[in-house]
This record gives sequence, structure tokens and C-alpha cells, in this order.
Amino acid sequence: MTVKIAVLPGDGIGPEIVAEALKVLDCLRTEFGLAVETEHALIGGAAYDAHGTPFPKETLDLCRAADSVLLGAVGGPKWEPLDYSLRPERGLLGLRSELALFSNLRPAVLYPQLVSASTLKPEVVSGLDIMIVRELTGGIYFGKPRGRRINDQGEREGYNTLVYSESEIRRIAHSAFQIARKRNKRLCSIDKANVLECTELWREVVIEVGKEYPDVALSHMYVDNASMQLVRNPKQFDVMLTDNMFGDILSDCAAMLTGSIGMLPSASLDKDGKGMYEPIHGSAPDIAGRGIANPIATILSLAMMLRYSLDDAASAERIENAVQKALDQGYRTADIASEGTAKVGTAAMGDAIVAAL
Amino acid sequence: MTVKIAVLPGDGIGPEIVAEALKVLDCLRTEFGLAVETEHALIGGAAYDAHGTPFPKETLDLCRAADSVLLGAVGGPKWEPLDYSLRPERGLLGLRSELALFSNLRPAVLYPQLVSASTLKPEVVSGLDIMIVRELTGGIYFGKPRGRRINDQGEREGYNTLVYSESEIRRIAHSAFQIARKRNKRLCSIDKANVLECTELWREVVIEVGKEYPDVALSHMYVDNASMQLVRNPKQFDVMLTDNMFGDILSDCAAMLTGSIGMLPSASLDKDGKGMYEPIHGSAPDIAGRGIANPIATILSLAMMLRYSLDDAASAERIENAVQKALDQGYRTADIASEGTAKVGTAAMGDAIVAAL
Ligand SMILES: CC(C)[C@H](C(=O)O)[C@@H](O)C(=O)O
Ligand SMILES: CC(C)[C@H](C(=O)O)[C@@H](O)C(=O)O
Repeated sequence: MTVKIAVLPGDGIGPEIVAEALKVLDCLRTEFGLAVETEHALIGGAAYDAHGTPFPKETLDLCRAADSVLLGAVGGPKWEPLDYSLRPERGLLGLRSELALFSNLRPAVLYPQLVSASTLKPEVVSGLDIMIVRELTGGIYFGKPRGRRINDQGEREGYNTLVYSESEIRRIAHSAFQIARKRNKRLCSIDKANVLECTELWREVVIEVGKEYPDVALSHMYVDNASMQLVRNPKQFDVMLTDNMFGDILSDCAAMLTGSIGMLPSASLDKDGKGMYEPIHGSAPDIAGRGIANPIATILSLAMMLRYSLDDAASAERIENAVQKALDQGYRTADIASEGTAKVGTAAMGDAIVAAL
Repeated sequence: MTVKIAVLPGDGIGPEIVAEALKVLDCLRTEFGLAVETEHALIGGAAYDAHGTPFPKETLDLCRAADSVLLGAVGGPKWEPLDYSLRPERGLLGLRSELALFSNLRPAVLYPQLVSASTLKPEVVSGLDIMIVRELTGGIYFGKPRGRRINDQGEREGYNTLVYSESEIRRIAHSAFQIARKRNKRLCSIDKANVLECTELWREVVIEVGKEYPDVALSHMYVDNASMQLVRNPKQFDVMLTDNMFGDILSDCAAMLTGSIGMLPSASLDKDGKGMYEPIHGSAPDIAGRGIANPIATILSLAMMLRYSLDDAASAERIENAVQKALDQGYRTADIASEGTAKVGTAAMGDAIVAAL
């Protein structure tokens, strides 16, 4: 049975880094007999330029029909003046929502070869391996009512709604507990239960779900303290469970602790494990088109796809080992370069990984 | 004219650290003729224990009548089982709201003597000096509607409202621009304008206010990127302007970059500059009553009070210099101790600073 992957390169460096991931996929196909076919579609600013919308219906249809989605990145200053509803981000948020990709997995892993890239002291971050499980289709990102209005004093006013139902919290909590089970069995749930009623319910429901996972040690932390603890002693964490907004903030902080966000993949899964995979870094418009972007996060996103959605752990490991080997051989893109290593461009890094495969 | 200070020691280590700040105040009074009187009141868990409410009316009345308020810290596990409305945090939030203390100043400063306490590499943080200006009486902390309900599917649901009016944004923006003017004239406003309409208005109004401060360089950053940039290169920031929730998260992250949150004071000001002053750290119930807490953040909060609310920069500087001197002499509480320094308790640190005065 041939697996179908929808490929959405997006904007900025998106097309460049996705091209390298596709080289890797091609190699798996020709050398290891992986039965997979790909089809491309537009999203974000690229889709707006071609079709006047960041999220064309054909793109949604293709993603719905596919077994899995590989995304590059969306956004750029070019589209910032556009109306809200037309901005590249809407494409991404629409995709998350339409495909019900509620479970966002964001690993923050420090590669031993890259310890020196971190701004933190080696002893604080070496061996770092956190998995952030972020709720992705609810909370303040999608809550209604939202918008702008004129208030009773005749002033402009902007408003958004943070809202979570029991079932939304329950399903993401199950995701997180199941992942914790496969790791070090420690789950820290993040909230602001001392101030926000919505996250008080969050804590309550997470505790309820936790009863079904007595083998996982559950703890709770306020979001302000969590952002502090990530800097103070990040290795205290195994799996962190967060809502949509807090996850946006904390996962970027955690990623940056590794000093090499060009290395970090992510998965966004629906209830059946179907998913979208993308690097956690953005479209980096400042370096787009120059052939210097790091393709590893996208290549590792492909590995995550094979592991989580396509049930092919062997191919996933092959890719991960090939990345390690290329790093061991000293290949580095500009963002992770250091003395004594070989600085290469996007395509050369992709080639090195393919060679290592 | 005698200045009146309301003193609210609060919970946990609060009473211990406030006692040391009062020693310093006493010294200013007897040695330098500062005309000030103090009166104590209860807040938080201590107030709940005595009066069944975390924010007694007498406390509010005293704070209203006073020229300025010095607070220790509130909260602790003892009061966590209490109903929402009775928790220590409600006392603090009530005080902020009732006194209309909308402008929260949170400096993150690295003391040269304490560079090694940071988990970040010295070259990344040495010389760090950020001022976070956090909106403190609006946003999702106070927005309505809020609470819990049963939704149409018969499930529990929790909800909160993020809301800002033009005038709320305008006044905190003015605070931030004015502070930036007295510093390095760079202001970075934090929002999530690509997702939340409320913060889109935030950005718009900040830009409007910025027109009145052409000498201040204004920039904007999404909150997720800000949490990343704080870790990557914190020295890029001078003044950061944030809403209530983002400020809660980012200010704790920024504080922890210094490695010594026991050193950091804060001010919460109303429109006339009347204010409440408190250490940014919490009540630390785990070390309460042991005489080992660091009183410096509280002592420096007193210095901030003298500077911002009591218009006595000379006394503020005296205190700040005395703290520097005690550090130079090698005095350290446990949280900032390192090899080759003299580890002292709370009272001894207070005494060392008084002696240096
Ligand atoms: C681009 C933006 C809408 C998105 C988000 O806020 O979720 C991004 O920051 C992310 O974290 O994937
Ligand atoms: C104690 C709590 C209500 C408070 C807040 O969230 O504002 C604290 O975290 C702070 O930052 O002062």
C-alpha cells in the first residue's frame, strides 16, 4: 500500500528546506523500498500570492486525502500589511483546525555535538531532552467571542476568549500521559490556576485523567514559574503539558535552550495519529533564497512522521542516525557552525545526510 | 512633612525579609533624618488566618491613606485548598486593582559580583539590564466574563476574557515610553498580533502613542519570539512593554537569567506615581522561618520606593550603594553564595547593609 504525503513548502526558506527532506524521502524510496508518493500544494503567503487566500480549498482537500502532511514554514514581512483573515498564519491555523490536529509535540533535545551552541552553561543543558505537548486547536487561539468593538466609553477595545471544555483537556491530557509512559514517566502540567478559572479546570481534569496513569508521576506548575524553571534547571522536566498559548511561549523558550532551533522538528496529530509535521523554526525571510538555511529540522520532521503517523520506526531511526552521522562528520550549516567544523549550505547538508543514509 | 508607609509583610519569608528592609529604613531615619513613619497590616494567607479574608478592609484603608506600600510576599501550600476567592493571591490582585496600580516595573539586572550565579554563559548575560513594564490591572487577569459553566454538550467548561481598551493600553504605553526615555531610548512592545485581535489593538495603540516619543526607538515582537530572544540574546533589550499575562511569564524568565531573583525588586504604580513595592520573588514557603532568605530584593524595593514615589533619589542611591558594598565585602545569602564568599543569614545580610549605609 502506497502512502500519500501532502507537501506544503510554504514561504521564506520553506521551499529550500522541504526540498532537502524530499531528497531524503527519495533515497528511502529507491534504496529501502519505502512505498510513498508525494503531492505538492500551496499554503500561507505563497498561496495568497497565487490564489488570494492563504489556505485554498485544494490544499485542504489534498491534506484531507493524504495520509500525512509535511510543511515547511509560513509568513514574512511581505504579507504583514494584509488584513488579518488573509495573512499566512491563517493558513496554518486553518489547517490545524480543519484537520483537528489538537496534539502538538515539540521536542527540545540537545545534540551532544552542539552543546556549545547553547547560551546556557554546558552542565545546565547537556543531555537535555524535554517533550512539550501543546494543545493546538483550542484555547485563546480559537475561542469566541473575539474581535474589536467600541466600548461604553466610546473607545476601541480588543477582546479574545480563553476557553477549554472538559473533553478538549481530556484528550490532550491522554496524549501527554501516553507519551510520558514511553519516556521517563514524569508529566508536568502547566497552568495559571491561581488566577484563571479556565486553567483551574485544566488542572482539575488533568488530575482526573492522571488517575488512569498511576505509573506516570504527575506534577503541576504555574506558567510563570515554568518559564523560570526552564532557565534555572531545564533538565528537571521530562514531558510538559500546556495549553495552546502557554505552549507557544514555553516551547520556543525550551527550543532556544538547545541553541539550535534549526534542529528541532514537531508533530501535530489528530485523534487517529494522522498528522502534520514541520520544523519548529519559522520561515526566516531574512535568509530565504540564499541556500544557507538548516534543513535538519525538516528532515527530522520527516522522521517523526514515519514514527508517529506511518508506523515505520525503522525508517525514522535510519534518518535520525544519518543526521547524527553527518553531524559527527563535522557538517554544519551556518546557524550551528563552530570552530573546527565544515560550514555547508542547505543542499550540501541534505546531500551529506542522504550519503549517510 | 512625614511620609507614611504601609507595611504588609504577608506570608512565608515575607515577615523576615520585610524586617530587614525596616532596619534599613530605621537607619535612614535616625542617621539621615528621613521623615517617615510606618504602619503594619495583614494581607494574603496571614490575613485570611486572622480575619477570614486575604484582603481585609482595614488593609485597603491603610494602603489608601498611606503615601506608599511595602509588601513582602503572599501565598503558600497551606492556603491552596481554599476557595478561589479566599486565596492569598486574591489579596495581592485586589490591592493592585483597588489602588489602580496599572504600571508594574520589573528590572532584570545582573550584578557584576553575581555573574557566576546565572545559568547562562557570562558573555551572554554580563551587564544585563532590562526593564520590563507590565500592565497590571487589566487583560486576562481581570477580564469579564470569566468562570465555569456547563456547555451545550453538557460538559464542564472554563473561560476567561482577554480584553484591553484603548485608554488602558495608552496609559501603560506612556509609562513605558517615559521610562525608555530615561534609559537607552529603546522600547520593544510584546504582543501576539498575528493571532489575537486584542493584542493587534495593543500594537496599534502603542504605535500611536509612540508618535509622541520620536526620540524613543520602538519595535514590536511576538511573545513566542520574545521568550526565545530572552534566552538567545537578552542584552538586545532595553525596555520591554507587555500586557499582564505575557509580562507575568516573561518577567520571571528575564529575572531568572540573572540567576539571582533574590536580588530583584519591583514597583507597581498608579497614575500619580503612588505605588506598591515588593520583591519579585515569592513567599518561598520551603525556607520560611529559617532565617536564610535573601532580603536584598526587599531592601532594593525600598530604594525603588524612595526613587519613584517619594522623590528621594539620594536615599535610594544610598541604599543601592550599601547593597553593592555588602556584596563587594563578600556577604552572600545561600541563594547567591559561591566559593570564596561569606555565607550569611537574612538578619546578618540586613545588618551588613545597614553597616554599609
Ligand atoms: C505562526 C503562528 C500562528 C504559530 C503559533 O502561534 O502557533 C507559531 O508561532 C507556532 O508556534 O507554530
Ligand atoms: C501571585 C500571582 C497572582 C502573581 C501574578 O500572577 O501576577 C505573581 O505571579 C506575580 O507575578 O506577581
